[in-house]
Amino acid sequence: MFDVRPVGYVIGLLVAVLGAAMLLPMLADLARGDPHWLVFLECAIITGLSGGLIALACSNSLGRGLTIQQSFLLTTGVWVALPAFGALPFMLGVPGASFTDAVFEAMSGMTTTGATVFVGLDDMPAGTLLWRGLLQWLGGLGIVIVALIFLPVMKVGGMQYFRSEGFDTLGKILPRALDISSALIQVYVALTLACMVVYVMVGMSTFDALVHALTTIATGGFSTYDASFGRFIGPAEYASSVFMILATLPFIRYVQVLNGTAMPLFRDLQVRAYLRWIGYAIGVTVIYRIAVEDVGLAEALRESTFNIISIFSGTGYGSTDVTQWGAFPFVVLIVVGMIGGCTSSTGCSVKVFRYLVLIEGIRAQLRRIQSPNRVIPVRLGGQAVGEDVVNSVIVLFTCFILTFGLTAVGLSMTGLPTLPAITAAWTAVFNIGPVFGAGVGPTGAMDAFPTAAKWLMIFAMLLGRLELLTVFVLFLPRFWRG
Amino acid sequence: MFDVRPVGYVIGLLVAVLGAAMLLPMLADLARGDPHWLVFLECAIITGLSGGLIALACSNSLGRGLTIQQSFLLTTGVWVALPAFGALPFMLGVPGASFTDAVFEAMSGMTTTGATVFVGLDDMPAGTLLWRGLLQWLGGLGIVIVALIFLPVMKVGGMQYFRSEGFDTLGKILPRALDISSALIQVYVALTLACMVVYVMVGMSTFDALVHALTTIATGGFSTYDASFGRFIGPAEYASSVFMILATLPFIRYVQVLNGTAMPLFRDLQVRAYLRWIGYAIGVTVIYRIAVEDVGLAEALRESTFNIISIFSGTGYGSTDVTQWGAFPFVVLIVVGMIGGCTSSTGCSVKVFRYLVLIEGIRAQLRRIQSPNRVIPVRLGGQAVGEDVVNSVIVLFTCFILTFGLTAVGLSMTGLPTLPAITAAWTAVFNIGPVFGAGVGPTGAMDAFPTAAKWLMIFAMLLGRLELLTVFVLFLPRFWRG
Ligand SMILES: [K+]
Ligand SMILES: [K+]
Repeated sequence: MFDVRPVGYVIGLLVAVLGAAMLLPMLADLARGDPHWLVFLECAIITGLSGGLIALACSNSLGRGLTIQQSFLLTTGVWVALPAFGALPFMLGVPGASFTDAVFEAMSGMTTTGATVFVGLDDMPAGTLLWRGLLQWLGGLGIVIVALIFLPVMKVGGMQYFRSEGFDTLGKILPRALDISSALIQVYVALTLACMVVYVMVGMSTFDALVHALTTIATGGFSTYDASFGRFIGPAEYASSVFMILATLPFIRYVQVLNGTAMPLFRDLQVRAYLRWIGYAIGVTVIYRIAVEDVGLAEALRESTFNIISIFSGTGYGSTDVTQWGAFPFVVLIVVGMIGGCTSSTGCSVKVFRYLVLIEGIRAQLRRIQSPNRVIPVRLGGQAVGEDVVNSVIVLFTCFILTFGLTAVGLSMTGLPTLPAITAAWTAVFNIGPVFGAGVGPTGAMDAFPTAAKWLMIFAMLLGRLELLTVFVLFLPRFWRG
Repeated sequence: MFDVRPVGYVIGLLVAVLGAAMLLPMLADLARGDPHWLVFLECAIITGLSGGLIALACSNSLGRGLTIQQSFLLTTGVWVALPAFGALPFMLGVPGASFTDAVFEAMSGMTTTGATVFVGLDDMPAGTLLWRGLLQWLGGLGIVIVALIFLPVMKVGGMQYFRSEGFDTLGKILPRALDISSALIQVYVALTLACMVVYVMVGMSTFDALVHALTTIATGGFSTYDASFGRFIGPAEYASSVFMILATLPFIRYVQVLNGTAMPLFRDLQVRAYLRWIGYAIGVTVIYRIAVEDVGLAEALRESTFNIISIFSGTGYGSTDVTQWGAFPFVVLIVVGMIGGCTSSTGCSVKVFRYLVLIEGIRAQLRRIQSPNRVIPVRLGGQAVGEDVVNSVIVLFTCFILTFGLTAVGLSMTGLPTLPAITAAWTAVFNIGPVFGAGVGPTGAMDAFPTAAKWLMIFAMLLGRLELLTVFVLFLPRFWRG
């Protein structure tokens, strides 16, 4: 077996950072004189100490860089260890929350899914609400770093296509990785602050604006109210729509903008397709709602824009009961959730880039069938895409569909009716947030789901967030031999 | 543009044969003294004459064989022209049937889908019922011939994998193609007769046994009663199950059995996987129904065996209301319908072979991710599978999923509620038969569907039956230039 200590060392450090982050909700509770702050102090000490001890136990030099095996183990390890510790404040501080519920909420946070098992958010301590937001914010930041630095080297889901923009090997260029990471963190913080300021301008309290900004930029979708964005009908919906889109554009482009070149952002094929497809989805929904259901233009436009962008970007806020929209807009929502935002953003799901490759791959296949003796490469924006990229993309897409199907079957085996089983699988595998149908509480919470269903969703959220194959590879026996 | 006359010539001959086939239902009506026989005489004359004229107009030598382009055009052309003429007896002979309904029923027949828009089957003239059965029987025979002779050369959906078993080029080996076709027809007729005899033995009338034998071996699923197999509860269900499985094993293996070698049938990886998966699906359903729903073993076993094999094989008979089985067995039914039988059988859907390639493709991808510098081929049963086969299979699978999704969206746009829209797309794209949910009549008929939904299903049935790409390729502008 290979050396797992470097992996443990990094995970230990990150757990310690998570412990430090628990001091923020402690302060939020303290500021309101809520005795609940003691929970966070206790959790911060446990988490900080545990993280430190893990790091200490595994302390040896990282100087040699990480091997491919270690990178895979680290990625999954982070998304297992951090939710485990992140669940502590829920276990100790939310009355009635079971162990399952606490882990569900923490995993839903770190994976930026946003599905919740908590009811009565409106009356929860500020610390708990802030902690939910912070978990998503940290999870969103983590996934951007993984997407930009790890996935291209791991060749997961065709991400090697973006390799030239990133790095050559993990070992060699750690300094550049740190450069990029720090630029990313600047962009991420700046977007969050801008979002918070705008939220205050459209009428949110400072605290609501902070938590919603954290969960908007992370495309997480946790809210501070059971009614989610139903509390902020109006201009706030348009403001949120803009930031949800910004959060799902490729962050590498923002780093380039910081370096003074904005053209790559505007010329990005993926960005253009994403914006175009958002336009189509909103367009057909607005037309359908006006023509078939006789809704006014202003209302149709506002509701469609917000709720479609919320699902397309994988954020998952709701401002209205979309199941009342009729079958067609509902199917549009389900479909856009299976597309998702752009690569190297906080967005989840399959992502626009992979659909572009998929479409070109199918087109090339048709031309090959028609002219069996000619060599026909797959092209994207005029440039040839390697067969290995096309293969990886199509295999990942297939895995997404199969995992979605199997999760839906598994969930229905736990006793959920068909529609909630399918939408719960959809929300978990594509990290979206809402679940529809019978068995879901009036606030959209999954508190009444069977324990087995919750654990299946926990596992599915982890799989979906790490693009499936990153986790699957750990189940190969030969992985551990290597 | 290439020469379409050889294509027209073959289609004309087949239309003329279809016209001759109309004399059989005419005899059935005549035997019962039903004046309805005149409809079939009229249709036989129109169809026979039209076919003859088409063939005459296009008459030139077929001696040079067909090019790839001509083969594609022929395949789709046959499944457009024959349903068009096959719809005549419905248009002229079924009171109240619209043009749309007649075409729907004929396309559902020729594609062996088995979805129906007719209510009151129990009181229909024998000729009409026999014609529905004959359409499916001819469609099933046609698809086996296409799968064995055309698809491997066209390289659609990885069928080139089976090329060595079939032929090298279409032009060169027409004699061998005729040999194989005649062996296939013998097998097909023998299976049908055996099925009919067994049906009589388990209690059907001769006429019911004939029509059900025609639609069982074609895995078509049209019945002579609104209640479908609900009229034949008991041993007939087990008898039918055996023949539905026989109809979905690779017919090339039967030809080998005829030639004295039965081992390839028993050693066939696809056959073994198919039988194993059927066993699993029935097993979990029986256990679930006994454990969760407190059904007796005999009933659970009989109902599960028949209805699961009916959907898995793509036949689509029903003997009970499966939506009352609970969410989990229902999801199992939907999933097995998306697998389907073996290649080169009358079965529809994605087929077991492609799932085997898919699973091995994903396994190879995982090992490639884990060891990026090693060459890892995809293996099936110990033998390497070409990358082009793996690519074709995965692309076809993706196209199936996307077509299914788009059809569901399209159907919901026509106003169907979610569950019927999804199951109607499933039944059309995978050529299965039943549709579930609101809007479907008590007999399972789709007579009340909007006209737009019916036409969308007609097109989807055609696409699914011809493995999508065979039809898609006709939409490439360069196809017509070639
Ligand atoms: K989300
Ligand atoms: K069928």
